[in-house]
Amino acid sequence: MTEETASTAPEDLARHAEKMAKKKAARDKIMATKTGEKGLIIVHTGKGKGKSSAAFGMIFRHIAHGRKSAVVQFIKGAMSTGERDLILRHFSDLCDFHTMGEGFTWETQDKARDIAMARAAWEKAKELIRDPANSMVLLDEINIAIRYDYVPLADVLTFLAEEKPPMTHVVLTGRNAAEGLIELADLVTEMELVKHPFRSGIKAQQGVEF
Amino acid sequence: MTEETASTAPEDLARHAEKMAKKKAARDKIMATKTGEKGLIIVHTGKGKGKSSAAFGMIFRHIAHGRKSAVVQFIKGAMSTGERDLILRHFSDLCDFHTMGEGFTWETQDKARDIAMARAAWEKAKELIRDPANSMVLLDEINIAIRYDYVPLADVLTFLAEEKPPMTHVVLTGRNAAEGLIELADLVTEMELVKHPFRSGIKAQQGVEF
Repeated sequence: MTEETASTAPEDLARHAEKMAKKKAARDKIMATKTGEKGLIIVHTGKGKGKSSAAFGMIFRHIAHGRKSAVVQFIKGAMSTGERDLILRHFSDLCDFHTMGEGFTWETQDKARDIAMARAAWEKAKELIRDPANSMVLLDEINIAIRYDYVPLADVLTFLAEEKPPMTHVVLTGRNAAEGLIELADLVTEMELVKHPFRSGIKAQQGVEF
Repeated sequence: MTEETASTAPEDLARHAEKMAKKKAARDKIMATKTGEKGLIIVHTGKGKGKSSAAFGMIFRHIAHGRKSAVVQFIKGAMSTGERDLILRHFSDLCDFHTMGEGFTWETQDKARDIAMARAAWEKAKELIRDPANSMVLLDEINIAIRYDYVPLADVLTFLAEEKPPMTHVVLTGRNAAEGLIELADLVTEMELVKHPFRSGIKAQQGVEF
Protein backbone atom coordinates (compact mmCIF):
# COMPACT_ATOMS: atom_id res chain seq x y z
CA MET A 1 0.00 0.00 0.00
CA THR A 2 2.70 2.53 -0.96
CA GLU A 3 0.02 4.93 -2.16
CA GLU A 4 -1.46 4.99 1.32
CA THR A 5 1.39 6.83 2.98
CA ALA A 6 1.67 10.54 3.42
CA SER A 7 4.77 10.83 1.20
CA THR A 8 4.70 13.92 -1.00
CA ALA A 9 7.81 13.19 -3.10
CA PRO A 10 7.06 14.22 -6.72
CA GLU A 11 7.32 10.68 -8.13
CA ASP A 12 5.00 9.36 -5.40
CA LEU A 13 2.46 12.10 -6.10
CA ALA A 14 2.50 11.37 -9.84
CA ARG A 15 2.09 7.62 -9.20
CA HIS A 16 -0.74 8.37 -6.80
CA ALA A 17 -2.55 10.62 -9.30
CA GLU A 18 -2.28 7.94 -11.98
CA LYS A 19 -3.55 5.18 -9.69
CA MET A 20 -6.44 7.30 -8.49
CA ALA A 21 -7.38 8.26 -12.06
CA LYS A 22 -7.65 4.54 -12.89
CA LYS A 23 -9.68 3.93 -9.74
CA LYS A 24 -12.03 6.78 -10.59
CA ALA A 25 -12.50 5.52 -14.17
CA ALA A 26 -13.33 2.03 -12.86
CA ARG A 27 -15.76 3.42 -10.32
CA ASP A 28 -17.45 5.75 -12.82
CA LYS A 29 -17.90 2.80 -15.17
CA ILE A 30 -19.58 0.72 -12.46
CA MET A 31 -21.79 3.61 -11.35
CA ALA A 32 -22.98 4.16 -14.93
CA THR A 33 -24.56 0.69 -14.89
CA LYS A 34 -26.63 1.60 -11.82
CA THR A 35 -29.51 3.36 -13.46
CA GLY A 36 -32.59 1.80 -11.89
CA GLU A 37 -34.88 3.45 -9.40
CA LYS A 38 -37.36 1.66 -7.21
CA GLY A 39 -38.95 1.87 -3.81
CA LEU A 40 -36.72 -0.11 -1.51
CA ILE A 41 -37.50 -2.39 1.40
CA ILE A 42 -34.81 -1.45 3.89
CA VAL A 43 -34.05 -3.35 7.11
CA HIS A 44 -31.86 -2.18 10.01
CA THR A 45 -31.26 -4.96 12.51
CA GLY A 46 -28.63 -6.27 14.95
CA LYS A 47 -27.82 -5.62 18.59
CA GLY A 48 -25.78 -2.49 17.97
CA LYS A 49 -26.80 1.15 18.14
CA GLY A 50 -27.98 3.33 15.29
CA LYS A 51 -30.78 1.21 13.80
CA SER A 52 -33.47 3.82 14.41
CA SER A 53 -31.15 6.81 14.11
CA ALA A 54 -29.92 5.78 10.70
CA ALA A 55 -33.55 5.33 9.65
CA PHE A 56 -34.44 8.78 10.98
CA GLY A 57 -31.47 10.05 8.95
CA MET A 58 -33.31 8.97 5.80
CA ILE A 59 -36.46 10.69 7.06
CA PHE A 60 -34.41 13.88 7.57
CA ARG A 61 -33.06 13.54 4.02
CA HIS A 62 -36.62 13.33 2.77
CA ILE A 63 -37.49 16.44 4.75
CA ALA A 64 -34.41 18.24 3.35
CA HIS A 65 -35.60 17.44 -0.18
CA GLY A 66 -39.16 18.54 0.59
CA ARG A 67 -40.49 15.00 0.13
CA LYS A 68 -43.25 13.58 2.31
CA SER A 69 -42.73 10.67 4.67
CA ALA A 70 -44.37 9.00 7.65
CA VAL A 71 -43.23 7.21 10.80
CA VAL A 72 -45.01 4.58 12.89
CA GLN A 73 -43.28 3.83 16.18
CA PHE A 74 -44.28 0.35 17.30
CA ILE A 75 -42.59 0.78 20.68
CA LYS A 76 -42.71 4.07 22.48
CA GLY A 77 -39.93 3.31 24.91
CA ALA A 78 -37.31 3.06 22.18
CA MET A 79 -36.01 6.41 23.44
CA SER A 80 -35.54 8.25 20.13
CA THR A 81 -37.38 11.17 21.69
CA GLY A 82 -34.88 13.69 20.33
CA GLU A 83 -35.58 12.98 16.68
CA ARG A 84 -39.32 12.69 17.32
CA ASP A 85 -39.49 16.02 19.14
CA LEU A 86 -37.50 17.73 16.40
CA ILE A 87 -39.81 16.39 13.67
CA LEU A 88 -43.00 17.20 15.58
CA ARG A 89 -41.80 20.72 16.35
CA HIS A 90 -40.36 21.73 12.98
CA PHE A 91 -41.41 19.40 10.19
CA SER A 92 -44.84 17.99 10.98
CA ASP A 93 -46.07 19.24 7.57
CA LEU A 94 -43.61 16.91 5.82
CA CYS A 95 -43.61 13.94 8.19
CA ASP A 96 -46.71 12.25 9.57
CA PHE A 97 -45.72 10.85 12.96
CA HIS A 98 -47.58 8.11 14.87
CA THR A 99 -46.39 6.66 18.16
CA MET A 100 -48.60 3.62 18.67
CA GLY A 101 -46.77 1.33 21.09
CA GLU A 102 -46.72 1.78 24.83
CA GLY A 103 -43.25 0.61 25.73
CA PHE A 104 -41.30 -2.59 25.76
CA THR A 105 -43.49 -5.50 26.65
CA TRP A 106 -41.72 -6.08 29.97
CA GLU A 107 -42.52 -2.47 30.88
CA THR A 108 -46.27 -2.78 30.28
CA GLN A 109 -46.85 -6.38 31.49
CA ASP A 110 -50.22 -6.32 29.71
CA LYS A 111 -50.01 -8.65 26.76
CA ALA A 112 -53.55 -8.25 25.46
CA ARG A 113 -53.08 -4.47 25.27
CA ASP A 114 -49.65 -4.87 23.64
CA ILE A 115 -51.13 -7.10 20.94
CA ALA A 116 -54.02 -4.71 20.29
CA MET A 117 -51.62 -1.77 20.02
CA ALA A 118 -49.23 -3.60 17.70
CA ARG A 119 -52.10 -4.59 15.40
CA ALA A 120 -53.45 -1.01 15.38
CA ALA A 121 -49.96 0.21 14.52
CA TRP A 122 -49.77 -2.25 11.64
CA GLU A 123 -53.16 -1.10 10.30
CA LYS A 124 -51.91 2.51 10.41
CA ALA A 125 -48.69 1.44 8.71
CA LYS A 126 -50.59 -0.15 5.81
CA GLU A 127 -52.71 2.97 5.38
CA LEU A 128 -49.60 5.21 5.27
CA ILE A 129 -47.75 2.93 2.84
CA ARG A 130 -50.76 2.79 0.51
CA ASP A 131 -50.98 6.61 0.50
CA PRO A 132 -49.17 7.71 -2.69
CA ALA A 133 -48.23 11.04 -1.05
CA ASN A 134 -45.64 9.26 1.13
CA SER A 135 -42.32 8.58 -0.52
CA MET A 136 -40.94 6.78 2.57
CA VAL A 137 -42.59 5.08 5.56
CA LEU A 138 -40.51 4.12 8.61
CA LEU A 139 -41.83 1.26 10.76
CA ASP A 140 -39.69 1.80 13.82
CA GLU A 141 -39.12 -1.30 16.01
CA ILE A 142 -41.66 -3.38 14.05
CA ASN A 143 -39.21 -6.31 14.16
CA ILE A 144 -39.90 -6.71 17.87
CA ALA A 145 -43.68 -6.83 17.28
CA ILE A 146 -43.12 -9.43 14.55
CA ARG A 147 -40.81 -11.51 16.72
CA TYR A 148 -43.41 -11.71 19.49
CA ASP A 149 -45.95 -12.62 16.79
CA TYR A 150 -48.07 -9.59 17.77
CA VAL A 151 -47.99 -8.70 14.06
CA PRO A 152 -47.95 -11.85 11.88
CA LEU A 153 -44.84 -12.05 9.71
CA ALA A 154 -46.80 -13.55 6.81
CA ASP A 155 -49.11 -10.51 6.71
CA VAL A 156 -46.15 -8.14 6.58
CA LEU A 157 -44.39 -10.06 3.80
CA THR A 158 -47.54 -10.42 1.71
CA PHE A 159 -48.41 -6.76 2.06
CA LEU A 160 -44.90 -5.56 1.17
CA ALA A 161 -44.65 -7.90 -1.80
CA GLU A 162 -48.12 -7.31 -3.20
CA GLU A 163 -49.48 -3.96 -2.04
CA LYS A 164 -46.55 -1.61 -1.47
CA PRO A 165 -46.56 1.01 -4.26
CA PRO A 166 -43.49 0.33 -6.46
CA MET A 167 -41.74 3.65 -5.76
CA THR A 168 -42.40 3.83 -2.01
CA HIS A 169 -39.50 3.12 0.34
CA VAL A 170 -40.35 1.19 3.52
CA VAL A 171 -37.83 1.00 6.37
CA LEU A 172 -38.22 -1.65 9.08
CA THR A 173 -36.06 -1.50 12.20
CA GLY A 174 -35.43 -3.55 15.31
CA ARG A 175 -33.36 -6.47 16.55
CA ASN A 176 -33.88 -10.01 15.32
CA ALA A 177 -35.31 -9.24 11.89
CA ALA A 178 -37.09 -12.33 10.58
CA GLU A 179 -35.29 -14.42 7.94
CA GLY A 180 -38.20 -14.03 5.51
CA LEU A 181 -38.05 -10.26 5.81
CA ILE A 182 -34.30 -10.22 5.17
CA GLU A 183 -34.88 -12.34 2.07
CA LEU A 184 -37.54 -9.98 0.75
CA ALA A 185 -35.58 -6.80 1.53
CA ASP A 186 -33.43 -4.87 -0.95
CA LEU A 187 -31.06 -3.30 1.56
CA VAL A 188 -30.18 -4.89 4.90
CA THR A 189 -27.74 -3.50 7.43
CA GLU A 190 -26.81 -5.23 10.65
CA MET A 191 -25.63 -2.92 13.40
CA GLU A 192 -23.21 -4.94 15.45
CA LEU A 193 -22.31 -4.02 18.99
CA VAL A 194 -18.54 -3.99 19.39
CA LYS A 195 -18.25 -2.10 22.67
CA HIS A 196 -20.77 -0.44 24.95
CA PRO A 197 -20.22 1.98 27.84
CA PHE A 198 -23.06 0.41 29.92
CA ARG A 199 -20.51 -2.28 30.69
CA SER A 200 -18.47 0.27 32.59
CA GLY A 201 -21.43 1.69 34.51
CA ILE A 202 -22.21 4.66 32.25
CA LYS A 203 -25.92 5.47 31.98
CA ALA A 204 -27.91 6.56 28.93
CA GLN A 205 -27.10 10.22 28.29
CA GLN A 206 -29.07 13.09 26.78
CA GLY A 207 -28.06 13.75 23.19
CA VAL A 208 -26.50 10.31 22.80
CA GLU A 209 -29.17 7.71 23.59
CA PHE A 210 -32.22 10.01 23.65
CA MET B 1 -40.71 -19.56 23.95
CA THR B 2 -44.36 -19.96 24.90
CA GLU B 3 -44.54 -16.37 26.13
CA GLU B 4 -43.69 -15.19 22.63
CA THR B 5 -46.88 -16.30 20.96
CA ALA B 6 -49.99 -14.26 20.45
CA SER B 7 -52.15 -16.49 22.71
CA THR B 8 -54.57 -14.49 24.84
CA ALA B 9 -55.90 -17.34 26.98
CA PRO B 10 -56.29 -16.06 30.57
CA GLU B 11 -53.69 -18.40 32.07
CA ASP B 12 -51.19 -17.44 29.34
CA LEU B 13 -51.81 -13.76 29.96
CA ALA B 14 -51.27 -14.18 33.71
CA ARG B 15 -48.07 -16.17 33.15
CA HIS B 16 -46.90 -13.52 30.68
CA ALA B 17 -47.56 -10.66 33.13
CA GLU B 18 -45.67 -12.46 35.88
CA LYS B 19 -42.68 -13.23 33.63
CA MET B 20 -42.55 -9.68 32.35
CA ALA B 21 -42.77 -8.27 35.89
CA LYS B 22 -39.70 -10.34 36.81
CA LYS B 23 -37.93 -9.19 33.65
CA LYS B 24 -38.73 -5.56 34.43
CA ALA B 25 -37.48 -5.90 38.02
CA ALA B 26 -34.22 -7.43 36.79
CA ARG B 27 -33.80 -4.72 34.19
CA ASP B 28 -34.59 -1.89 36.62
CA LYS B 29 -32.01 -3.30 39.03
CA ILE B 30 -29.34 -3.34 36.33
CA MET B 31 -30.22 0.16 35.14
CA ALA B 32 -29.96 1.52 38.70
CA THR B 33 -26.25 0.62 38.69
CA LYS B 34 -25.65 2.74 35.57
CA THR B 35 -25.25 6.12 37.16
CA GLY B 36 -22.09 7.54 35.59
CA GLU B 37 -21.93 10.32 33.02
CA LYS B 38 -18.97 11.10 30.84
CA GLY B 39 -18.11 12.41 27.44
CA LEU B 40 -17.92 9.37 25.20
CA ILE B 41 -15.62 8.50 22.35
CA ILE B 42 -18.00 6.91 19.86
CA VAL B 43 -16.96 5.06 16.70
CA HIS B 44 -19.20 4.01 13.78
CA THR B 45 -17.38 1.76 11.36
CA GLY B 46 -17.95 -1.17 8.99
CA LYS B 47 -18.93 -1.50 5.34
CA GLY B 48 -22.65 -1.13 5.94
CA LYS B 49 -24.86 1.91 5.66
CA GLY B 50 -25.88 4.28 8.42
CA LYS B 51 -22.50 5.18 9.94
CA SER B 52 -22.86 8.89 9.24
CA SER B 53 -26.67 8.94 9.50
CA ALA B 54 -26.65 7.40 12.96
CA ALA B 55 -24.05 9.99 13.96
CA PHE B 56 -26.20 12.80 12.54
CA GLY B 57 -29.05 11.28 14.57
CA MET B 58 -27.10 12.13 17.73
CA ILE B 59 -26.46 15.65 16.40
CA PHE B 60 -30.24 16.02 15.84
CA ARG B 61 -30.84 14.81 19.41
CA HIS B 62 -28.48 17.50 20.64
CA ILE B 63 -30.37 20.07 18.56
CA ALA B 64 -33.69 18.80 19.95
CA HIS B 65 -32.38 19.31 23.49
CA GLY B 66 -31.00 22.78 22.65
CA ARG B 67 -27.39 21.64 23.18
CA LYS B 68 -24.55 22.87 21.01
CA SER B 69 -22.59 20.61 18.72
CA ALA B 70 -20.23 20.79 15.76
CA VAL B 71 -19.50 18.74 12.66
CA VAL B 72 -16.31 18.45 10.61
CA GLN B 73 -16.78 16.55 7.36
CA PHE B 74 -13.41 15.14 6.30
CA ILE B 75 -14.78 14.02 2.93
CA LYS B 76 -17.25 16.13 1.04
CA GLY B 77 -18.34 13.40 -1.33
CA ALA B 78 -19.79 11.27 1.46
CA MET B 79 -23.22 12.28 0.14
CA SER B 80 -24.98 13.15 3.41
CA THR B 81 -26.12 16.36 1.75
CA GLY B 82 -29.67 15.97 3.09
CA GLU B 83 -28.72 16.17 6.75
CA ARG B 84 -26.15 18.90 6.06
CA ASP B 85 -28.64 21.07 4.18
CA LEU B 86 -31.24 20.64 6.90
CA ILE B 87 -28.79 21.67 9.64
CA LEU B 88 -27.43 24.64 7.68
CA ARG B 89 -30.92 25.86 6.83
CA HIS B 90 -32.64 25.43 10.19
CA PHE B 91 -30.20 24.86 13.03
CA SER B 92 -26.95 26.67 12.23
CA ASP B 93 -27.20 28.48 15.59
CA LEU B 94 -26.91 25.15 17.44
CA CYS B 95 -24.58 23.24 15.12
CA ASP B 96 -21.32 24.61 13.75
CA PHE B 97 -20.79 22.87 10.41
CA HIS B 98 -17.47 22.59 8.53
CA THR B 99 -17.05 20.70 5.28
CA MET B 100 -13.29 20.54 4.82
CA GLY B 101 -12.58 17.64 2.46
CA GLU B 102 -12.94 17.76 -1.28
CA GLY B 103 -14.18 14.29 -2.08
CA PHE B 104 -12.83 10.78 -2.04
CA THR B 105 -9.18 10.75 -2.90
CA TRP B 106 -9.79 8.91 -6.19
CA GLU B 107 -12.14 11.73 -7.18
CA THR B 108 -9.62 14.52 -6.63
CA GLN B 109 -6.44 12.74 -7.76
CA ASP B 110 -4.41 15.43 -6.02
CA LYS B 111 -2.74 13.88 -3.03
CA ALA B 112 -0.87 16.93 -1.79
CA ARG B 113 -4.08 18.92 -1.65
CA ASP B 114 -5.95 16.02 0.02
CA ILE B 115 -3.29 15.84 2.75
CA ALA B 116 -3.38 19.60 3.31
CA MET B 117 -7.17 19.54 3.57
CA ALA B 118 -7.26 16.58 5.93
CA ARG B 119 -4.72 18.28 8.21
CA ALA B 120 -6.67 21.55 8.15
CA ALA B 121 -9.82 19.59 9.01
CA TRP B 122 -8.02 17.98 11.95
CA GLU B 123 -6.83 21.38 13.22
CA LYS B 124 -10.42 22.63 13.05
CA ALA B 125 -11.62 19.47 14.82
CA LYS B 126 -9.23 20.04 17.72
CA GLU B 127 -10.34 23.65 18.05
CA LEU B 128 -14.02 22.62 18.16
CA ILE B 129 -13.41 19.80 20.67
CA ARG B 130 -11.46 22.15 22.96
CA ASP B 131 -14.32 24.67 22.88
CA PRO B 132 -16.33 24.00 26.06
CA ALA B 133 -19.51 25.29 24.36
CA ASN B 134 -19.70 22.10 22.26
CA SER B 135 -21.25 19.11 23.96
CA MET B 136 -20.65 16.84 20.93
CA VAL B 137 -18.29 17.03 17.96
CA LEU B 138 -18.79 14.73 14.95
CA LEU B 139 -15.70 13.95 12.86
CA ASP B 140 -17.43 12.53 9.81
CA GLU B 141 -15.34 10.11 7.70
CA ILE B 142 -12.17 10.86 9.66
CA ASN B 143 -11.38 7.13 9.66
CA ILE B 144 -10.60 7.33 5.95
CA ALA B 145 -8.19 10.23 6.47
CA ILE B 146 -6.51 8.26 9.28
CA ARG B 147 -6.29 5.11 7.19
CA TYR B 148 -4.51 6.95 4.38
CA ASP B 149 -2.25 8.44 7.06
CA TYR B 150 -3.28 11.94 6.00
CA VAL B 151 -4.07 12.53 9.68
CA PRO B 152 -1.63 10.60 11.93
CA LEU B 153 -3.43 8.09 14.15
CA ALA B 154 -1.04 8.76 17.04
CA ASP B 155 -1.99 12.47 17.04
CA VAL B 156 -5.70 11.61 17.17
CA LEU B 157 -5.30 9.09 20.01
CA THR B 158 -3.08 11.39 22.07
CA PHE B 159 -5.42 14.33 21.62
CA LEU B 160 -8.55 12.35 22.53
CA ALA B 161 -6.88 10.76 25.56
CA GLU B 162 -5.21 13.88 26.91
CA GLU B 163 -6.97 17.00 25.67
CA LYS B 164 -10.64 16.15 25.10
CA PRO B 165 -12.71 17.83 27.83
CA PRO B 166 -14.10 15.05 30.07
CA MET B 167 -17.79 15.74 29.31
CA THR B 168 -17.49 16.28 25.54
CA HIS B 169 -18.72 13.50 23.25
CA VAL B 170 -16.63 12.90 20.10
CA VAL B 171 -18.03 10.75 17.29
CA LEU B 172 -15.68 9.35 14.64
CA THR B 173 -17.12 7.68 11.55
CA GLY B 174 -15.88 5.83 8.49
CA ARG B 175 -14.85 2.37 7.35
CA ASN B 176 -11.77 0.62 8.66
CA ALA B 177 -11.53 2.30 12.04
CA ALA B 178 -7.99 1.81 13.39
CA GLU B 179 -7.48 -0.84 16.10
CA GLY B 180 -6.02 1.74 18.46
CA LEU B 181 -9.06 3.96 18.10
CA ILE B 182 -11.43 1.05 18.78
CA GLU B 183 -9.43 0.26 21.92
CA LEU B 184 -9.64 3.85 23.15
CA ALA B 185 -13.35 4.27 22.33
CA ASP B 186 -16.22 3.82 24.79
CA LEU B 187 -18.91 2.88 22.27
CA VAL B 188 -18.18 1.14 18.98
CA THR B 189 -20.76 0.01 16.45
CA GLU B 190 -19.94 -1.86 13.28
CA MET B 191 -22.45 -1.41 10.49
CA GLU B 192 -22.36 -4.62 8.52
CA LEU B 193 -23.58 -4.85 4.97
CA VAL B 194 -25.93 -7.80 4.62
CA LYS B 195 -27.57 -6.93 1.29
CA HIS B 196 -27.28 -3.97 -1.06
CA PRO B 197 -29.49 -2.96 -4.01
CA PHE B 198 -26.48 -1.77 -6.07
CA ARG B 199 -25.96 -5.46 -6.75
CA SER B 200 -29.18 -5.50 -8.71
CA GLY B 201 -28.44 -2.33 -10.66
CA ILE B 202 -30.29 0.17 -8.50
CA LYS B 203 -28.63 3.58 -8.29
CA ALA B 204 -28.27 5.90 -5.29
CA GLN B 205 -31.65 7.54 -4.71
CA GLN B 206 -32.73 10.90 -3.28
CA GLY B 207 -33.89 10.61 0.32
CA VAL B 208 -32.18 7.27 0.79
CA GLU B 209 -28.48 7.73 0.02
CA PHE B 210 -28.38 11.55 -0.16
